[in-house]
Amino acid sequence: MTAVRNVLFVMCDQLRRDHVSCYGSSRVPTPNIDRLAKLGVRFEEGYVQSGVCGPARMSYYTGRYVTSHGATWNRVPLSAAEYTLGDYLLAAGRKATLAGKTHVLPDGKAIERFGIEIESERGALLREGGFTVVDRYDGHTPPGPESGYADFLRAHGYESADPWSEYVIGVEDRGRVASGWQMRNVHLPSRVAEPHSETAYMTDLALDWIRAQGDTPWVLHLSYVKPHWPYVAPAPFHSMFRDADVGPIVHGAQDGGSDEHPVVRAYREHDECLSFGQEAVARHVRPAYMGLIAQLDAHLGRVLDALKAMGRLADTLIVFASDHGEFAGDRGLGEKELFYDEIVRVPFIVCDPDPRADATRGSADTRFVEGIDVVPTILDALGIAPSRHRIEGRSLLPLTRNQTPVAWRDCAYSELDYGFRRARRVLGRGVRECRGYMVRTDAWKYVHWEGFRPQLFDLLADPQELVDLGGDARYGDERARMRERLFDWMATRKRRTTVGDEEVATHTDTHRARGIHIGIW
Amino acid sequence: MTAVRNVLFVMCDQLRRDHVSCYGSSRVPTPNIDRLAKLGVRFEEGYVQSGVCGPARMSYYTGRYVTSHGATWNRVPLSAAEYTLGDYLLAAGRKATLAGKTHVLPDGKAIERFGIEIESERGALLREGGFTVVDRYDGHTPPGPESGYADFLRAHGYESADPWSEYVIGVEDRGRVASGWQMRNVHLPSRVAEPHSETAYMTDLALDWIRAQGDTPWVLHLSYVKPHWPYVAPAPFHSMFRDADVGPIVHGAQDGGSDEHPVVRAYREHDECLSFGQEAVARHVRPAYMGLIAQLDAHLGRVLDALKAMGRLADTLIVFASDHGEFAGDRGLGEKELFYDEIVRVPFIVCDPDPRADATRGSADTRFVEGIDVVPTILDALGIAPSRHRIEGRSLLPLTRNQTPVAWRDCAYSELDYGFRRARRVLGRGVRECRGYMVRTDAWKYVHWEGFRPQLFDLLADPQELVDLGGDARYGDERARMRERLFDWMATRKRRTTVGDEEVATHTDTHRARGIHIGIW
Repeated sequence: MTAVRNVLFVMCDQLRRDHVSCYGSSRVPTPNIDRLAKLGVRFEEGYVQSGVCGPARMSYYTGRYVTSHGATWNRVPLSAAEYTLGDYLLAAGRKATLAGKTHVLPDGKAIERFGIEIESERGALLREGGFTVVDRYDGHTPPGPESGYADFLRAHGYESADPWSEYVIGVEDRGRVASGWQMRNVHLPSRVAEPHSETAYMTDLALDWIRAQGDTPWVLHLSYVKPHWPYVAPAPFHSMFRDADVGPIVHGAQDGGSDEHPVVRAYREHDECLSFGQEAVARHVRPAYMGLIAQLDAHLGRVLDALKAMGRLADTLIVFASDHGEFAGDRGLGEKELFYDEIVRVPFIVCDPDPRADATRGSADTRFVEGIDVVPTILDALGIAPSRHRIEGRSLLPLTRNQTPVAWRDCAYSELDYGFRRARRVLGRGVRECRGYMVRTDAWKYVHWEGFRPQLFDLLADPQELVDLGGDARYGDERARMRERLFDWMATRKRRTTVGDEEVATHTDTHRARGIHIGIW
Repeated sequence: MTAVRNVLFVMCDQLRRDHVSCYGSSRVPTPNIDRLAKLGVRFEEGYVQSGVCGPARMSYYTGRYVTSHGATWNRVPLSAAEYTLGDYLLAAGRKATLAGKTHVLPDGKAIERFGIEIESERGALLREGGFTVVDRYDGHTPPGPESGYADFLRAHGYESADPWSEYVIGVEDRGRVASGWQMRNVHLPSRVAEPHSETAYMTDLALDWIRAQGDTPWVLHLSYVKPHWPYVAPAPFHSMFRDADVGPIVHGAQDGGSDEHPVVRAYREHDECLSFGQEAVARHVRPAYMGLIAQLDAHLGRVLDALKAMGRLADTLIVFASDHGEFAGDRGLGEKELFYDEIVRVPFIVCDPDPRADATRGSADTRFVEGIDVVPTILDALGIAPSRHRIEGRSLLPLTRNQTPVAWRDCAYSELDYGFRRARRVLGRGVRECRGYMVRTDAWKYVHWEGFRPQLFDLLADPQELVDLGGDARYGDERARMRERLFDWMATRKRRTTVGDEEVATHTDTHRARGIHIGIW
């Protein structure tokens, strides 16, 4: 029997792996994430299925690759036909609760077509990606009615129709209110006190909710909107780091050159890259980004302290991950997307309280894990059988429990659809001609770009991916091998989702039993 | 303006292309299909998206490849998230009406999950694949309550709880009733008179329904269950053909040998192949199969006569096709599936009444067309804009109207999932390890089989596909080229189905307008 009764799935938004100290050479000390890593297994090779919030999260919530769930970018609704963590839990008499961000866009067309009332129980689940909502707040816009954050702010004296814009991302610059949207202002502190910040607010709500559960088992997705932009940190975190802490900015050999990959070059025309392409901007903004990480780490410490005090560390599976990273000026790029490790390789920690996991506590595991593994891991921990015909990820518990799973994957996959981005127009592509597919082994990273040459990086010789060998004639064989991997991966995606594997097995070669006698003499 | 007001989409089940006389060297004269071909365009290279009823039809009805709609075999429900011809017509204030077979299995899990009443209007549409039903009868089992056929039979004196088994596929052999399921009996006539046969019944219903529409525009899917097995033909069609009419049985160079493709060899263990593998069986059964085709042709003649008499030939788009072919003993195989031309290359005729199509009447077109083209062709004919983010086929009207469409496809694709078949057990495969993908150009056919070597046929040197070059070292380059085509095809399937292309175009690079100011200084 498993010791796991509860699940806490903590997600950070835009948290870059090399800004977490247990992952080594961090610019930011993160003692509490490190503490979590000591309680569990730190996965060295954790990948997201897309380097942008929406599709990465839909993979986290469905256990399926982007090509399978179809929500290829932020503004693409998750099909009502997809099953999420919440659906699987519901079928087992449990539920998934949300405090924070999901980035789920409901499938409004299906809701209308099927005549589902959006305020009904089913409608609410479809609207919230299967989560039951304590507080939903997707960040980077003023909180909507599904969040209590605006009222919370007003109750604490931040009087405004839009306290988020005016106070949370507002700063005071020489007596005037300025906006944190403008990165020139992010060296200044937020106009809210730290306990009223987004990270503090959502942590409080989560802890209150956990306490209210008493001994009732629970599954909570505590999903922070930080350290995602706007990069305004509250005091004292806004000034915790200085230029000198930022470290070197990385530059690729082809950065901005004519031999750079066309899609990467097109991204340079986005606002965030035009800004972060200036090293002075990166050096100005990074300390705020780092401060937001330090703040988040402090609140994670509060969560761990509270769980410990309640005795919940002994029966709660904790998954900690990020939905993608942040360039923050490396390669002259800003923000996210594309397939560099800064973006798609994320912090990924699993604390399995089961005694069978004692032997792996505090260890690092170098096997490839992916965002799609979270749903099957949670289901496994709670003793719920996974839907193998839909879920493409694998439970990580055989890894935390030091069992030897057969044939663990030796690569990770990620995808991108830049149909909504300016890069599409720069490149003159149609809205359905903007897809990239990445496969990454321990030695190579290969990216197939629709309509353009691929990218290829020799990760053993060039771990920072500074030299793109995608057009280098000497690497044709390696490209062909990596392309074969993508072929086999595409050809084996789970498309037959309306019937379970067991049903197929049971009904194999059974037409005679149903009175259908094909081809008998 | 188009002259098309009505659409008649005629489907035959298991009608093999070389058993239709306008396609040349036919064993069966089919004067009425030929007459249809004279009224329109006969497509020489028409392909189905799978060589088996269910997935082939779901592609016909959705306009999408099997990997996109996900109904990979007969017993796999069509996802409620898929849109069919009926859905598209409904959105435009029209409807699609059915007389005959669809093979649609409703997505019961979704219907339950979304709380849809199966007897509601939406429930009925989901149950029937978007069709409004005059009479639904999928054939090869006793007709269910959604068909009036059993009552019709009883009203005509065939008294029985199951008049289909007892009369329609029953034969009288030396004073005793024998079953047409046993192929040894198919030289004998059905126990129903020809006007009470399945083909006659459905033709009558369709004509009555068309007449009842008067001048109201309509879209009818007249979907015959024949010449599909059981191969029992009513008199006089049961004895119209003799062994001598059957012609040669084709044999492949590797048939049943150790160098035969493993999947094909596994299919030989199916009942229908064990029977049809004996030439005597093929020669015994084919005349009945041919008789069923001749009968169907005669009833198609009635349809054309009636349409002509009503003046409907002038304003009705007619599409005539088959869902797949039949081996009937060729290669020692029986029935369908796999990727040989006997199965996936089908008769495919489009009669476009528009005057702009006058120049192409009676012509043959050698461009590749696919089952997925039917939905966009019908929508185009009725002036309804297609959903480009979902529909993968193309309207054929530019071909019938002798316009020159840009970049017409130069190959066709087909898929197979044999997870439900005995072959899976023979090969020891898991239920999700049984997929094949075909790409066929004018010169080559390549089949990727999960877990096995591919098949390759040189169609210029070997148009009958008798020599499988899939393991021949000399053809590695050709295999690589064909595999590249499959790669590009898989990488560009329409997965982003919850948002329209226009919406993506409109929302490209518009985050600033929504108050999101990423990365500005």
